[in-house]
Amino acid sequence: MEQEKIYLDNAATSFPKPEEVPMAVYDYMTKLGTNVNRGGYATAYDTESVVFECRELIGALFHAPDYKNVVFTRNITESMNVVLKGLLHSGDHVIVSSMEHNAVMRPIRQLEKKGVSFTRVQCESDGSLKPEKLSSCLRPDTKAVVMTHASNVFGTMLPIEEVGNFCKENGLVFILDSAQTAGVFPIDMEKMHIDILCFTGHKGLLGPQGIGGFILRDELVLKIEPLISGGTGSLSNVETVPEFMPDRFEAGTPNLPGIFGLHAALNWLRKLGELSLLEEKRRTENVVFEDKENFHFLSSSEENIDRIENIFTRGADNAELFTTEHCFSAALEKISEHELHLTEEFLTLLEPLEKEGKLKIIGKKDTEMRTGVVSIQTLTRELSDTAFQLDTRYGIMTRVGLHCAPSAHKTMGTYPTGTIRFSFGFANTDKEVKLAIDALRELLEEEK
Amino acid sequence: MEQEKIYLDNAATSFPKPEEVPMAVYDYMTKLGTNVNRGGYATAYDTESVVFECRELIGALFHAPDYKNVVFTRNITESMNVVLKGLLHSGDHVIVSSMEHNAVMRPIRQLEKKGVSFTRVQCESDGSLKPEKLSSCLRPDTKAVVMTHASNVFGTMLPIEEVGNFCKENGLVFILDSAQTAGVFPIDMEKMHIDILCFTGHKGLLGPQGIGGFILRDELVLKIEPLISGGTGSLSNVETVPEFMPDRFEAGTPNLPGIFGLHAALNWLRKLGELSLLEEKRRTENVVFEDKENFHFLSSSEENIDRIENIFTRGADNAELFTTEHCFSAALEKISEHELHLTEEFLTLLEPLEKEGKLKIIGKKDTEMRTGVVSIQTLTRELSDTAFQLDTRYGIMTRVGLHCAPSAHKTMGTYPTGTIRFSFGFANTDKEVKLAIDALRELLEEEK
Repeated sequence: MEQEKIYLDNAATSFPKPEEVPMAVYDYMTKLGTNVNRGGYATAYDTESVVFECRELIGALFHAPDYKNVVFTRNITESMNVVLKGLLHSGDHVIVSSMEHNAVMRPIRQLEKKGVSFTRVQCESDGSLKPEKLSSCLRPDTKAVVMTHASNVFGTMLPIEEVGNFCKENGLVFILDSAQTAGVFPIDMEKMHIDILCFTGHKGLLGPQGIGGFILRDELVLKIEPLISGGTGSLSNVETVPEFMPDRFEAGTPNLPGIFGLHAALNWLRKLGELSLLEEKRRTENVVFEDKENFHFLSSSEENIDRIENIFTRGADNAELFTTEHCFSAALEKISEHELHLTEEFLTLLEPLEKEGKLKIIGKKDTEMRTGVVSIQTLTRELSDTAFQLDTRYGIMTRVGLHCAPSAHKTMGTYPTGTIRFSFGFANTDKEVKLAIDALRELLEEEK
Repeated sequence: MEQEKIYLDNAATSFPKPEEVPMAVYDYMTKLGTNVNRGGYATAYDTESVVFECRELIGALFHAPDYKNVVFTRNITESMNVVLKGLLHSGDHVIVSSMEHNAVMRPIRQLEKKGVSFTRVQCESDGSLKPEKLSSCLRPDTKAVVMTHASNVFGTMLPIEEVGNFCKENGLVFILDSAQTAGVFPIDMEKMHIDILCFTGHKGLLGPQGIGGFILRDELVLKIEPLISGGTGSLSNVETVPEFMPDRFEAGTPNLPGIFGLHAALNWLRKLGELSLLEEKRRTENVVFEDKENFHFLSSSEENIDRIENIFTRGADNAELFTTEHCFSAALEKISEHELHLTEEFLTLLEPLEKEGKLKIIGKKDTEMRTGVVSIQTLTRELSDTAFQLDTRYGIMTRVGLHCAPSAHKTMGTYPTGTIRFSFGFANTDKEVKLAIDALRELLEEEK
């Protein structure tokens, strides 16, 4: 009998994806298949309209200043490189947190060799950041703050609204790395004064690997020299890079299967939110389902939506009961609640093991200002062997090591040993949390 | 009744893909789904082994110096930017042809502002290049030659073996843009003295959009500063970029669905070649099929392969009758023959229309040193209207305009009007060529 797998590595990439996502990729590749901006025929325009809609959905999710300023890249690493290397020049100074991923630090280290300097604001021993520490890092040549929304290793969330305010007050460009939070926690470019938002499509946004992007404010468009240039299907008569968006930053054939997948994922999120809002309406307005069936967290099938929508028959308006923004925020609430519930349960069940001296929970032990990521160090068994046994004997997939974030580990005192990281996703269950704990206990109590 | 579509825009992206390609993407996304270099569990290694095999197949196809030096990018545009911007510095001079795509020219124009200079070697009026013209472009500061293997607009192939020799003799780095030829025409890095080969996955290689790459010689690895840096899952303890391959140039989560798709496409090509070789063997060795059935060009199904292989029963060796390199070269022969046959037929049928003054064939009128790409200008009807009518009335998909290659159009005298481009792929048929000609004739004879 094949062992059932328990996937607890959602901070690396989310799995499974909603079934609509691989289906949309497959459908695009088999039925449509054509390029964009490069064909004089109808299916090329069909493709374009999905790409366009995908920008709109991303724009709505993050309250972007303009959907045209949503740029697609391969991943958030590329986004960071485009933004940092395009914006920062010799003589510029930038502030980062001590929790940054190498997707931020490696480009900054390359820029350092070209005369860009940086200050690392030290986070606390629980991984949190005191925003008042930022002022002391400020210099006359400071141009920007680059910061992760949450640590990929410890799940600690940083106070980005305060950081956004600080940037606004001091005329700095605020660049946010949303790799660990987009699609799970609310991010509002307007409210949080985010000037450039970098995102990846394959984690909380539930899209395929290979698609990410960034969104920037209008006034920054011409201040960033494109890192990658080439054919755009626009201004084909000249060899200079177009100044308009999104073409300025999108050269060459885009990852269209990836965009179709992300589009489906965003629609899934939107529908999840719609379902949640409809259910809420049903509850508060005391409407009784004809078939008494409740909808479930993951059942966003058309039939299910139809069934619920039938309760509120409004003819053609049915699909527009709520705005996209409203739906997204309901979906995020639902997903973050679920992931934090699992995290809380996991932390609670870890505690006895910690008290028994079998392991150490690194960082915060509550779910305030944190994502569904927990890092531990095992004390009675070597880390990578524990992770290996978790997989081979129990089918539990985690990640062990430094997670491309040496600075975060230095902050938390886990460098260079690293940690075993458990990260929960929308599809994980209470039962899986318990199985993970049971497996850990068995392994850590074992005579070696 | 829905109109049957005729796709003649394979120079933009190939369509359809072999059915194994979207299937492999779908299977990866639904069954495997995990990241690489980032997980301590078995399925992460399963994913890795496909990525590894994909590098090996690419390496075999192009006779690469080392499979580790096969780097994946989003597309050939990114590859060109990484290579050109990483290699060329202020004071360097580079030679390009006058047929280059903006994927080459736009990065070079950006580099020009940073002190890199370039000379454009003028191609002939039929789009061909006299290699002896290169010497006059040589300067003491010349570092590299960047050249397309074939014009994306006119299909003219450039004499890259001679260019390779010239580069070798003069100690220049030879960078090849294989966007229009990879997967259709033989490219041998060793034999042709190609130092850096840039490729895209979604044209002749028949993979999905969103995956491309480059291959470089060992001695160039450290001479190119990575354009994009970040987490690699390796050397996670430091903030500097790894020096080893392929990690040096592959930061962030790769486009794994894309790599799985490309892997399936390359295996399809390999199998096509194997079938072709088996069929050849059958013919020359006068073996008679039991069921008298011939295999067809596109039928690379497992059943078909099995059926043919049964002729040469050799037990377990069956699958290893031919080397991968041998299979690839047989596949390319088969595909290029097919595409050039269609091109020849198309050119022959265009000729009467040209004689009647209805249109003008731009560039070469034969299939020597050309790909399956034909550009025309219509004389009795406006170009973009003709392309539009071809699509809406006849379902024939072409591309009209400057095709991101203003310099090529200037060379051929079609700037700024542009051309209508017809480009054939492995799945196109004789019948489709005839239908395209009939449609053109009808449109060009029409009273407007």
